[in-house]
Amino acid sequence: MARIVVKFGGTSVANVERIRQAARHVKREVEAGNEVAVVVSAMSGKTNELVGWVNEASKFHDAREYDAVVGSGEQVTAGLMAIVLSEMGIQSRSFAGWQVPIHTDDAHGAARITGIDPTMLDERLRQGWVPVITGFQGISPHQRITTLGRGGSDTSAVAVAAAVGADRCEIYTDVDGVYTTDPRIVPKAQRLSKISFEEMLEMASLGAKVLMIRSVELAMAHKVRLVVRSSFDDPEAPQLAPDGTPGIPGTLVCDEDEIMEKQIVSGVTLAKSEAKITLRDVKDKPGVAADIFGALADRSIVVDMIVQNVSDDGSVTDITFTVPDGEYEKAVDALENNKNIEYAKIVGSKGGAKISVVGVGMRSHAGVASSMFRALADKGINIQLITTSEIKTSVLIDDQYAELAVRALHTYYGLDKKNA
Amino acid sequence: MARIVVKFGGTSVANVERIRQAARHVKREVEAGNEVAVVVSAMSGKTNELVGWVNEASKFHDAREYDAVVGSGEQVTAGLMAIVLSEMGIQSRSFAGWQVPIHTDDAHGAARITGIDPTMLDERLRQGWVPVITGFQGISPHQRITTLGRGGSDTSAVAVAAAVGADRCEIYTDVDGVYTTDPRIVPKAQRLSKISFEEMLEMASLGAKVLMIRSVELAMAHKVRLVVRSSFDDPEAPQLAPDGTPGIPGTLVCDEDEIMEKQIVSGVTLAKSEAKITLRDVKDKPGVAADIFGALADRSIVVDMIVQNVSDDGSVTDITFTVPDGEYEKAVDALENNKNIEYAKIVGSKGGAKISVVGVGMRSHAGVASSMFRALADKGINIQLITTSEIKTSVLIDDQYAELAVRALHTYYGLDKKNA
Repeated sequence: MARIVVKFGGTSVANVERIRQAARHVKREVEAGNEVAVVVSAMSGKTNELVGWVNEASKFHDAREYDAVVGSGEQVTAGLMAIVLSEMGIQSRSFAGWQVPIHTDDAHGAARITGIDPTMLDERLRQGWVPVITGFQGISPHQRITTLGRGGSDTSAVAVAAAVGADRCEIYTDVDGVYTTDPRIVPKAQRLSKISFEEMLEMASLGAKVLMIRSVELAMAHKVRLVVRSSFDDPEAPQLAPDGTPGIPGTLVCDEDEIMEKQIVSGVTLAKSEAKITLRDVKDKPGVAADIFGALADRSIVVDMIVQNVSDDGSVTDITFTVPDGEYEKAVDALENNKNIEYAKIVGSKGGAKISVVGVGMRSHAGVASSMFRALADKGINIQLITTSEIKTSVLIDDQYAELAVRALHTYYGLDKKNA
Repeated sequence: MARIVVKFGGTSVANVERIRQAARHVKREVEAGNEVAVVVSAMSGKTNELVGWVNEASKFHDAREYDAVVGSGEQVTAGLMAIVLSEMGIQSRSFAGWQVPIHTDDAHGAARITGIDPTMLDERLRQGWVPVITGFQGISPHQRITTLGRGGSDTSAVAVAAAVGADRCEIYTDVDGVYTTDPRIVPKAQRLSKISFEEMLEMASLGAKVLMIRSVELAMAHKVRLVVRSSFDDPEAPQLAPDGTPGIPGTLVCDEDEIMEKQIVSGVTLAKSEAKITLRDVKDKPGVAADIFGALADRSIVVDMIVQNVSDDGSVTDITFTVPDGEYEKAVDALENNKNIEYAKIVGSKGGAKISVVGVGMRSHAGVASSMFRALADKGINIQLITTSEIKTSVLIDDQYAELAVRALHTYYGLDKKNA
């Protein structure tokens, strides 16, 4: 017997029929003797509808009222899920965030969970009930409804799992797991059976949109094992892990220690439409980088890669960074109009693609970066920028070679499906 | 300065533009120096959508979950109203039923308000804030969301008005007051400037759908003065009572004592599609009526008029009653299949119309009933049944004469608009 928290996203509860399908997954787990708590998002589209009304009501609205309005969406799905489960003969009741309660700070619209009282949930779970909890929301110290910001339902699920001491938190979504790369680019992409929290964090921030970074961070901090799986799978089918053995379908995101045989490279990710901007001959003195990126932050421009080389003689250096293509002109403008920043000239271009290889195995294997550069060179692909972290190496290349590069690296690191 | 509770129904908050229009009425009252609390319904159509989903989820759903789902509609409009008011420069915040709190019993789906804690509302009102409260809902002793049943928002508004000691409760709706009769039948129908609670109760139960009976009963019990007015009036126009003098537009529903010059008859109401059923030669002994109407109640048939004459010799009598046309066969079947009820035969027919004249003035004026019968006779209309209460006389006539009868009585009692 295990204690499981399962979370269904917006597309998995888009209408009553989908909610019924999701409920069958819950039923299977209950009948297997597990204790199950459910966390739900709003029906897909509903949150956008509510946000639209709020913006129509006023561009400058009180965030507390935004939360009161937008938080209503999850209330609807939680109630409907409890009804559907009850009809299937499973004792169930809905809990709004304030009823649990899920305490948050009062940063309305982007609140952080400060604590969850597990008493009521724990009691229901031990009695064999299935509590259905609204994701994405909680209650502030002033007893107002708060929301956690987009994708907050994953975070809710992980926090509930940590609070009730769940064995795992299963995130049901519209894909059946985390892949070695985007299967639309590389049909031979393999579903990973396991991936470490650290790798998932790098994957998530590099464009694999399966899980929100924040929920992975929280899961890592509280050692909550996450499973990414599809709600569209047949709920009554035998439960088979990606390798075909009995187990949990999908990808387990877990502590590195749980992964016996570590892949050197677990995945290849791609982010397109990156513009690069280089400041030539920037004065090499303390505070220069702070001035440059401060000027960009003031204009709310999100910077991705940053590269600075050691200068030849310690007097001037080049600094290069990337921003989304759509922010290119704004970024150049921000720098040209800031009198504190001294440089010789600005050069740059749009249309770059960032390719990254991610894997905890890199730590213990020298030469991953160099082999990556060699694999790209073999295809005649020029590398414009390089950045690295402990478990990731990223390069910026010309957009037109993006798919070719991903396929080449995917094959090079042995990630292709054997029978595809 | 007055303290006012204003309530907006579903059509008055059907979209953000309508909410803005409603808010302008609030603004006018605030700028006139009044303390104003707002009670809102869900956007029109939204409650039906939510109820539809619940029924789709399960025909036999838990009423607590029904309430959790259906109660979300008012939460949306309360938040949006608070946002719109804030943008107009009026300090405002939304309150869900559980935040006030509005305590109810735990009869989910049809809960009764057991008490309202006025502390927070009173504090906000004294500080010049406009609290916006979700209508139709409250919180049960078990901390679950409850709903009051259809039309419950009027009841919420009256209860809030009683709790905060409001001078009046203004019900903004899609009509501009209570009329002497249905203006679609009698174009000369006049808007009443005042009507007593008792008269309003008779009018409401006789088919004038402006206010829910329950809210009128509550207003009468707590002596909360009610105003029925239109949210579609120009919010910035001078406030004129129905007689054209400065005052509150619409109809004031108040204690009889406040109405100086009482009309003998205040209104004429019409209910069509009534079927009459007569049991001939029923044994005239104790318990017979209880058997008959018990048999109908067991089949959930709502009986309207009931007439029993004194029997000639104390042995047998005739009992006649009316039911909606659609229940006619069911009612006859219920009586024919009940062996406890002894009678000679059942006769009846569909297609009756009930016409009623209502007025507190009847109490002190003899002859209202007889003059009503005379007015109908003058038009050649035959009366099939008669029932009376202290302030109402009702007759059943053939459906085809219904509109003629209403117009005749409306004119006869001097209710026609002078300049129409």
